Amino acid sequence: MTMADQVQRAKAFHTLHRQGEILVLVNAWDAASARVFELAGCPAVATTSAGLAWSLGYPDGERLPREDLVRAVAQICRVVTRPVSVDIERGFGRTVSEACMTVKALIEVGAIGINIEDGTDDSGRTLAPPAELVEKIEAIRALAKVSGLPLFINARTDAYFLPTVDPATRFADAVQRLRASAAAGADGVFAPGLDDLDEIARLVKAVDRPVNIYAGYAGVPSVVELARVGVRRVSVGCGPMQALLAFARTIATELGTGRTYAAMTDSMLSVAEVNGMFPAIKER
Amino acid sequence: MTMADQVQRAKAFHTLHRQGEILVLVNAWDAASARVFELAGCPAVATTSAGLAWSLGYPDGERLPREDLVRAVAQICRVVTRPVSVDIERGFGRTVSEACMTVKALIEVGAIGINIEDGTDDSGRTLAPPAELVEKIEAIRALAKVSGLPLFINARTDAYFLPTVDPATRFADAVQRLRASAAAGADGVFAPGLDDLDEIARLVKAVDRPVNIYAGYAGVPSVVELARVGVRRVSVGCGPMQALLAFARTIATELGTGRTYAAMTDSMLSVAEVNGMFPAIKER
Repeated sequence: MTMADQVQRAKAFHTLHRQGEILVLVNAWDAASARVFELAGCPAVATTSAGLAWSLGYPDGERLPREDLVRAVAQICRVVTRPVSVDIERGFGRTVSEACMTVKALIEVGAIGINIEDGTDDSGRTLAPPAELVEKIEAIRALAKVSGLPLFINARTDAYFLPTVDPATRFADAVQRLRASAAAGADGVFAPGLDDLDEIARLVKAVDRPVNIYAGYAGVPSVVELARVGVRRVSVGCGPMQALLAFARTIATELGTGRTYAAMTDSMLSVAEVNGMFPAIKER
Repeated sequence: MTMADQVQRAKAFHTLHRQGEILVLVNAWDAASARVFELAGCPAVATTSAGLAWSLGYPDGERLPREDLVRAVAQICRVVTRPVSVDIERGFGRTVSEACMTVKALIEVGAIGINIEDGTDDSGRTLAPPAELVEKIEAIRALAKVSGLPLFINARTDAYFLPTVDPATRFADAVQRLRASAAAGADGVFAPGLDDLDEIARLVKAVDRPVNIYAGYAGVPSVVELARVGVRRVSVGCGPMQALLAFARTIATELGTGRTYAAMTDSMLSVAEVNGMFPAIKER
């Protein structure tokens, strides 16, 4: 992929947040899932940090070595033709320079967007000071400008994910954090855990950026309802991988106890079809 | 894992082919699938060459760079406690030295068994001369002896996979090839594509090694039937991944057209459960 192609994909990704139907992202964790979702019609590929970590044998939470993240993203970028946005948690490091190192490496392998989050302070129980994420976003925006890429920065607050945040103040806290991120250069904002439709509608009105809602669990309003209140982006995080791993367990359990293959053979993509999804370039 | 641990796992894997119930292998392609299958009760982990290649963005057939195969196997070996056997197709190379290089690298990251196949000659339409696989097995057996590991070598013939092999002679051809592999040092034999129960029973009698049957598609006799005629090992290859990718497509299609999440949220492993499956060692 040339830098011109990459810029085109970045611009297309920005447009998907501003025009047309609500953007629905089915998050991928490896080249196969990314390609299946792309071929099923997804207009862009976004990674799930948890799913990607799991596929490589790590729990979620930046346990995965940075080079493993970058290699997995390179493998995804090699096979898809749509824009690729990467969830980098807190940047794979607490410092601004670590976050920049992560983003620089991801741009080099073809990514055109990121999710970056505030997360917690050292206690693990309280949200990190808002300035930490603001400084990272400012530095990443500057870095992207130098590279010539209109990187889509999706800024996330964990205000709704952290059980310790006071429900009485978390809407105000989230709005303040997301506005600060927007002022620092974020193109979109993300509040996973927020699933009350009225509160979502208020957030959309309160922050002047496309709002992303996380729908990776049961009970979240449907895409149609979210679109109606002005949400521009819906993502499902590690939900699809959680569902596939449950199915993997079902297959194994049926084979182990029932000694049959019905769950597996009920519906399969053919070997030829899956082989045909990938470029057959001999790279050895 | 120490070499003593690795030798123990290799010995356990040999025992699974000789004693107790028939060995049922639900083939894995990454650390997550391997760990889910292990926790579901699978007594060993075997990889699917196609599934592993797909997850990294390549069609099946040794397109994947060797170092990517080895890294993926290392990621699997890092998280599982059971024996790990790796499908190496023709050895990741036509020559004996390439096959040995592959096996040496896999032993170094913790593998205790391999599948190695005859495959086709340059025409792609005729089986490779039997001597090619025999020479590889002899060299790999010698290499394993030097390393001190009782490597389980599962020798595969594609006689039943290749549509160009004459049905009138393929049983005899397969028996001849598998006997030659056994004489060269193979511990088990594998004839994927063979799914006629009577012919399977004849193969079990004709070759003095544990027989592996491939059950990754609809119409193969059940595990109980296979065990009854003396089969010692059943594997499902890329079947589980084909099923999971079909499910992934269903989830994406439902989100894209129906705008709902029912297929995804119907049954999921929890984030906490999956996080708990992996060692939380900080390796950066």
